[in-house]
Amino acid sequence: IKMKMPDAHENVPVEEMDSSLGLSPSVDGPSNIDSRELGISKDPLLFIQLNELLGWPQALEWRETDIPQITLSIPLYHRWMLFEEKLEVGAGRWSAPHVPTLTLPSLQKLRSLLAKGLVLLDCPAQSLLELVEQVIQAESLSPELRGQLQALLLQRPQHHIQTRGICWGSAHPKKASHDENIPLKEQGQNSLRQKLPPGAEAAAVLAGELGFLAQPVGAFVRLRDPVVLGPLTEVPIPSRFFCLLLGPPAPRRGYHEMGRAAAVLLSDPQFQWSVRRARNLHDLLAALDTFLEGVTVLPPGRWDSTARIPPPKCLPSQHKRLPSQMQEVEGLSRARRARTEDRDSHEPHKPTLELQRTGRLFGGLVQDVRRKAPWYPSDFLDALHPQCFSAVLYIYLATVTNAITFGGLLGDATEGAQGVLESFLGTAVAGAAFCLMAGQPLTILSSTGPVLVFERLLFSFSRDYSLDYLPFRLWVGIWVATFCLVLVATEASVLVRYFTRFTEEGFCALISLIFIYDALGKMLNLTRAYPILRPGSPAYGCFCQYPVPGGGLRETGRDLDQVRTDDLGLVNASLLSPPECTRQGGYPRGPGCHTVPDIAFFSLLLFLTSFLFAMALKHVRTSRFFPSVVRKVLSDFSSVLAILLGCSLDAFLGLATPKLLVPREFKPTLPGRGWLVSPFGTNPWWLTVAATLPALLLSILIFMDQQITAVILNRKEYRLRKGAGFHLDLFCVAVLMLLTSVLGLPWYVSATVISLAHMDSLRRESRDCAPGEAPSFLGIREQRLTGLVVFILTGMSIFLAPVLKFIPMPVLYGIFLYMGVTALSSIQFMKRVQLLLMPAKHQPDLLLLRHVPLSRVHLFTAIQLACLGLLWIIKSTPAAIIFPLMLLGLVGVRKALEWVFSPQELLWLDELMPEEERNIPEKGLEPEHPFSGSDSEDSELMYQPKVPEINISVN
Amino acid sequence: IKMKMPDAHENVPVEEMDSSLGLSPSVDGPSNIDSRELGISKDPLLFIQLNELLGWPQALEWRETDIPQITLSIPLYHRWMLFEEKLEVGAGRWSAPHVPTLTLPSLQKLRSLLAKGLVLLDCPAQSLLELVEQVIQAESLSPELRGQLQALLLQRPQHHIQTRGICWGSAHPKKASHDENIPLKEQGQNSLRQKLPPGAEAAAVLAGELGFLAQPVGAFVRLRDPVVLGPLTEVPIPSRFFCLLLGPPAPRRGYHEMGRAAAVLLSDPQFQWSVRRARNLHDLLAALDTFLEGVTVLPPGRWDSTARIPPPKCLPSQHKRLPSQMQEVEGLSRARRARTEDRDSHEPHKPTLELQRTGRLFGGLVQDVRRKAPWYPSDFLDALHPQCFSAVLYIYLATVTNAITFGGLLGDATEGAQGVLESFLGTAVAGAAFCLMAGQPLTILSSTGPVLVFERLLFSFSRDYSLDYLPFRLWVGIWVATFCLVLVATEASVLVRYFTRFTEEGFCALISLIFIYDALGKMLNLTRAYPILRPGSPAYGCFCQYPVPGGGLRETGRDLDQVRTDDLGLVNASLLSPPECTRQGGYPRGPGCHTVPDIAFFSLLLFLTSFLFAMALKHVRTSRFFPSVVRKVLSDFSSVLAILLGCSLDAFLGLATPKLLVPREFKPTLPGRGWLVSPFGTNPWWLTVAATLPALLLSILIFMDQQITAVILNRKEYRLRKGAGFHLDLFCVAVLMLLTSVLGLPWYVSATVISLAHMDSLRRESRDCAPGEAPSFLGIREQRLTGLVVFILTGMSIFLAPVLKFIPMPVLYGIFLYMGVTALSSIQFMKRVQLLLMPAKHQPDLLLLRHVPLSRVHLFTAIQLACLGLLWIIKSTPAAIIFPLMLLGLVGVRKALEWVFSPQELLWLDELMPEEERNIPEKGLEPEHPFSGSDSEDSELMYQPKVPEINISVN
Repeated sequence: IKMKMPDAHENVPVEEMDSSLGLSPSVDGPSNIDSRELGISKDPLLFIQLNELLGWPQALEWRETDIPQITLSIPLYHRWMLFEEKLEVGAGRWSAPHVPTLTLPSLQKLRSLLAKGLVLLDCPAQSLLELVEQVIQAESLSPELRGQLQALLLQRPQHHIQTRGICWGSAHPKKASHDENIPLKEQGQNSLRQKLPPGAEAAAVLAGELGFLAQPVGAFVRLRDPVVLGPLTEVPIPSRFFCLLLGPPAPRRGYHEMGRAAAVLLSDPQFQWSVRRARNLHDLLAALDTFLEGVTVLPPGRWDSTARIPPPKCLPSQHKRLPSQMQEVEGLSRARRARTEDRDSHEPHKPTLELQRTGRLFGGLVQDVRRKAPWYPSDFLDALHPQCFSAVLYIYLATVTNAITFGGLLGDATEGAQGVLESFLGTAVAGAAFCLMAGQPLTILSSTGPVLVFERLLFSFSRDYSLDYLPFRLWVGIWVATFCLVLVATEASVLVRYFTRFTEEGFCALISLIFIYDALGKMLNLTRAYPILRPGSPAYGCFCQYPVPGGGLRETGRDLDQVRTDDLGLVNASLLSPPECTRQGGYPRGPGCHTVPDIAFFSLLLFLTSFLFAMALKHVRTSRFFPSVVRKVLSDFSSVLAILLGCSLDAFLGLATPKLLVPREFKPTLPGRGWLVSPFGTNPWWLTVAATLPALLLSILIFMDQQITAVILNRKEYRLRKGAGFHLDLFCVAVLMLLTSVLGLPWYVSATVISLAHMDSLRRESRDCAPGEAPSFLGIREQRLTGLVVFILTGMSIFLAPVLKFIPMPVLYGIFLYMGVTALSSIQFMKRVQLLLMPAKHQPDLLLLRHVPLSRVHLFTAIQLACLGLLWIIKSTPAAIIFPLMLLGLVGVRKALEWVFSPQELLWLDELMPEEERNIPEKGLEPEHPFSGSDSEDSELMYQPKVPEINISVN
Repeated sequence: IKMKMPDAHENVPVEEMDSSLGLSPSVDGPSNIDSRELGISKDPLLFIQLNELLGWPQALEWRETDIPQITLSIPLYHRWMLFEEKLEVGAGRWSAPHVPTLTLPSLQKLRSLLAKGLVLLDCPAQSLLELVEQVIQAESLSPELRGQLQALLLQRPQHHIQTRGICWGSAHPKKASHDENIPLKEQGQNSLRQKLPPGAEAAAVLAGELGFLAQPVGAFVRLRDPVVLGPLTEVPIPSRFFCLLLGPPAPRRGYHEMGRAAAVLLSDPQFQWSVRRARNLHDLLAALDTFLEGVTVLPPGRWDSTARIPPPKCLPSQHKRLPSQMQEVEGLSRARRARTEDRDSHEPHKPTLELQRTGRLFGGLVQDVRRKAPWYPSDFLDALHPQCFSAVLYIYLATVTNAITFGGLLGDATEGAQGVLESFLGTAVAGAAFCLMAGQPLTILSSTGPVLVFERLLFSFSRDYSLDYLPFRLWVGIWVATFCLVLVATEASVLVRYFTRFTEEGFCALISLIFIYDALGKMLNLTRAYPILRPGSPAYGCFCQYPVPGGGLRETGRDLDQVRTDDLGLVNASLLSPPECTRQGGYPRGPGCHTVPDIAFFSLLLFLTSFLFAMALKHVRTSRFFPSVVRKVLSDFSSVLAILLGCSLDAFLGLATPKLLVPREFKPTLPGRGWLVSPFGTNPWWLTVAATLPALLLSILIFMDQQITAVILNRKEYRLRKGAGFHLDLFCVAVLMLLTSVLGLPWYVSATVISLAHMDSLRRESRDCAPGEAPSFLGIREQRLTGLVVFILTGMSIFLAPVLKFIPMPVLYGIFLYMGVTALSSIQFMKRVQLLLMPAKHQPDLLLLRHVPLSRVHLFTAIQLACLGLLWIIKSTPAAIIFPLMLLGLVGVRKALEWVFSPQELLWLDELMPEEERNIPEKGLEPEHPFSGSDSEDSELMYQPKVPEINISVN
């Protein structure tokens, strides 16, 4: 018999039919956040278990004895919380959670069985026995069938693993089952119970084919009070629902599939909501029909129904599917609408509220202080959580690594004007002060990134003109602080809205490329300092010459290179190594005495090893190996571990590689200066005025870097409750600028990635999550204490100096390269550059590729590449120091792009500038034209969180 | 209005309802192979296109002018061949193919619209005009509506890209559309037309909402003769079906979804089959109902209906879904049943037919020759195809790389007894002879793998006992040939059925580990030969000493190490480099003269570079970058390219790294021997008899290696038509053994991976495949010519010698390491070892993990590891040479495992031995116990082709 579709609706106009469907586009992210955090489904979580009764030849024989033996019921478990898990009978383990797939006939048969079967809503049964009695009595069965059925249902279901012994021809089934598998199940039970939140309820579905039944028996029971149904559910939590689907033996496991259909229905949030409130059979069937209207159908010829679909990353939003009366009941519709609008604004990270101009001098700063002051006590109390300890450890190690790496490199580049000691001290002082005063205390300051590049340029500039560096630098610092204060006073931070992704990524790409170039350049320099000895190279030959007793050394003044080809004549010589030769009163002679072989290649090996090892460790996070804790540790501490590996290799071979220069005592690394920088030194007086020019450039740089970072840190998706403080942050940076300039310490600005790592280590998440569900994000522990402790520890690490001198420089260069490569690969710009090399067929399904023609995407990328090339050329000329101005020029280029690209294209490729937003009507912001309506198809991709764009100080 | 499910079936017993459903388990692989190759669907391929008509406010205004303007119809294309592709309007490109998802209401509305609409089967219309007229006439519409509709349908649909200009507020839409996007479409058309096979037909679905319609208009037309419907389809091929679904404006794009439903239905093979044969509306609706019964349903709360599902790797088998009358019509049911049985046998690679014992002496060999002789002429004629040229190039480069690598290494290990020249010559002679004579001419011979290991052991054995190696080796070869002939005579090849995966993988793992160990060991030896100069290391100091005019050299005889610490007194010295010093009549003095610095680390760098580069290139095949041709070339030639890179690096720096030793003239690499090996040399006479012992061991090794490879090459999944020749192949190997021993060339056996690569390069595949479909495999070009040409070219490459001497040995060691690692990582054993490190949650969804408890899997892996450890220990003792016997011992261990594991477990972890197969009843072979019925769930995973287990000679 073929099945027919309902004919009753054939004359119903389409719009009426549509009106009740849940087909509306869903555009706001994972359901777990919605439902749990907004409290839409206040209903307890439901754990659903399907047990199957199987009858087979032996069992059917036993049927005649009228004693339903225990072996009659072999439960085949499936379980659901959000996704389906199937018991792999052979392996004795639960499958990975997967999206449940059903067949349409099973749903239809379930519907008809429920329609004519027993539906008990708010059944008052207090135990399994009462429940079974009530169900059995209501069915129209013969008395002996009732007895059999009742006895069967009250049987304790067999332990699932024991079934193996019966059904399989295994030689040693019992040994296997008793030894190993029962503990496995116990274990599973415990971990499952932990995952279930306190108020969770269960639903038990019993399905199966029984030989002694002549016609189907179907029952759906909602218990008035949840009852622990003994052994029916894997975890002993009270059950709210009980569903019985039995019938005579049917081919193709009909009742099994019906049972699965019932369980899947119960696991659907909308159906669950409805069925909890259903008053009668009609409500139940209506809920089922609503479910059917919402299902996704895959055609049989194009999808294997047995394939298991892994849980999707984003679930459809549930609140749009929920009935409207429910939304009103919960009284949350307004809050929800507000949030939806936030998400729809396409600019989730522009904190509009805090960036309104007040119009008064220092108005923004005053506002910031007023906003943050009330939170100040809680900023310390909120830190009383064990999670903060691990956050401190993690961020401390990251900060120290940064201080070592960049301190070492800066000392290298500025010939000791800034060294490791200054780096430690400055980080400690500036970081701690910022944590105590700033608007956003989660920020970690760092001397890395653009400011580092500028400092290097400033140093080489002052060297070229023979200036006294530190006094000159002090004046630059004084002027920068002044300019920054002006920026605070005039509330310039609101201009941050003009820094679009285009600017951010240009900024980041340039800095990353400089990092990569520098790391490689420094390695190349090293091979020049320690030349490779080729066959026939001049650096060959060395011996120890002693003074001839009467006549002293002959030809002392001659160049050693010339010496090589000449006959030295008679000399008093030995073959001692150069140091020993000197000790014994001789003179090492020959070019070979001054070369250290093997260092160049070994340095290269160290460089590559630390780079590759750090990269590999970073990718461990997404590997399948090791428990997630181990993976997280390995990945989080990748650079620390890579440095340790490099040091061990170096120590093992004991070669004289160049090492990090560390002062032996607590004094500035530049010899002959005190802790306070003299304001003039040997510089002419007018340099104090001339310093305004570099100061202006540096101010631009610091403003851009600080504000872009602040915007990223204060994005809405991080759900900060205590608000931001853009003006206050900039004010603090200005003050610290002055302080560090006076002390001759590095300059500090907020660092994006390490601050994000800080926030990430302080995430509050829902602890118990169902298999296949990602834990939901609840917010950040906003406080000042973790940062403060980190910087106090960093300050104390100054005494680590004796250990630090074992770090070889090539290892630090490797970490430097790793940081540059990581930062470069994290930006969307690089993804688009990669698109240039990809055939269209293999390109990933990026949202922008769905909406912008490929040629326009390539054009945009090409313009960005051209800008980058121009910046690089400027950076390579003597005018390099003006590069901050050029970065600001990116904003102008971005503005000019409006003549080349349509606003829609820019919306997908970049984001809109304030004027554009105003110029475009509300509707124009929709990515698709309003007629196609296909914007709903993008829901999954649209609201993926943005990745941080500036991450130079990657850890 | 809520929708109801059909009530008509509520009283139908379940079994009756089930009988007509297509829910049966599908177990035999991708549909494309089934349908195309077996000819089940002789029906032409159907290309389906959905055009949508959209009415929006402007259009509705125009409606009143009674002139349906061209802008009224904006087609929104979707297209189907196997999977859905959607036109991304904004981007102007087709989306990636994806599994179409539908909503249930759209299917139900489509059904009701078809039920009351117009269904014209075998419509005789000859043009679009006739078709439209016939359709319009049949609809009950007012005359003016008819006119409007007809005019509208005959309009040429707008070019899809032009719609952007109208609907988007873009500043420069027209420029963009005309410049770039039209060529894009043309291009797409052309490539699409190429993909469509000659007889392909089209189906056009027109759906949309029209303001002037008061009620739905539905029509389904099957044309008697396919007609080109002008602009309705993207490619101008004749259309067989035409479907019109129009109605008044409906919310939620109701008609669009109905149109998609109709198109998806038409793309379903079963529905297509039915609808081509439908005689009336009832047949059509019945086909639709059958489709509905087969659909997979995803619950709305757990799946976002807008998510695009990528095409699955395996499609469900279609023939089980096809109606039974169809199977009879096509007359293929028997063939299909036979194939299904093959696949169900769980041992797809055991060629049972050719491995039946005849019971006569040399019976198998005679049978093989009889079977292969008739194919001999075609073995040359079948090579006349351009594909064979690229196969020759690929395999030639692979063979030469192997000859260089292994020749170099063997020469290194046997102190010149076997060198590069022997390797080239032997490969050419043995390979060519085998291609001409063998049973499986696609086999590529190689001297790599186990035989290489044995030869090294044999050499060190003979060196330890001061034997004359080559004569001893000749006798070993003579005896091996004799034993192999005995094995051929006794048809021992049938024993191959006892070599299960357990044995194969133990074999492979041991050899791979030896490769890895050797590569690393050789690198370590190199650093001993070229020591690293540490500070204070003794190898410091060198100068050039000239004879004192009257007295000669002082202290000439003293050890240079002693010299170092002593005062040499007055010497006549210079600092010339050692070679120049010698040339000028001096003597280089000092330990530093004899060390070459920088070589050790540079060798290490070369080693790592070539290893990592080869690994990286191998993975390029699966990257997203570059067109697939480039990726294939880079990946196929990974080792050649890695060697080239290593050589360039070495040449660039010009260091004196150890290079490959290549003879300058055509003579054996061992000095002082001719091409014929003397049968006795300096060995005692009884060694000719004693050689039987190593010969026995080598025979075991060769038998195992040759037969395991032959079994893999002749697996059913490669669909070889000309049959195998196990006995003939072994016979050839025996003859070649004799020949190569006499000439002192390396010994040769079939190499698995390079032969598989050979076969792979000769695959015949269906050329035109639909987007999202993998090309289907038709068979292999079985012939003898490609192999023959490859080996002739290899022989001619002997004259490459002057080039080969630039190859540094560390590069070859790197390639050696790469081969070992690649071989090791390809076996299932390693996957199971990895499981030991993986938390259960992250383990991949392997079939064996679904059916065997994890602890049992780990036990099996542990036993394998223990065997491997034992083999390794034996290999490290002086008894190393007996390791072939130990490998054979693996068969015994496997037999003993039957006491530990149940046959079902062994079936999943390994495969069954012949006795086990016989002992287990037919049903017992089913992986699940018969009651659960869940074996159907494994269909997707069960018949994945096995990966080759032995791949030492990877290229």
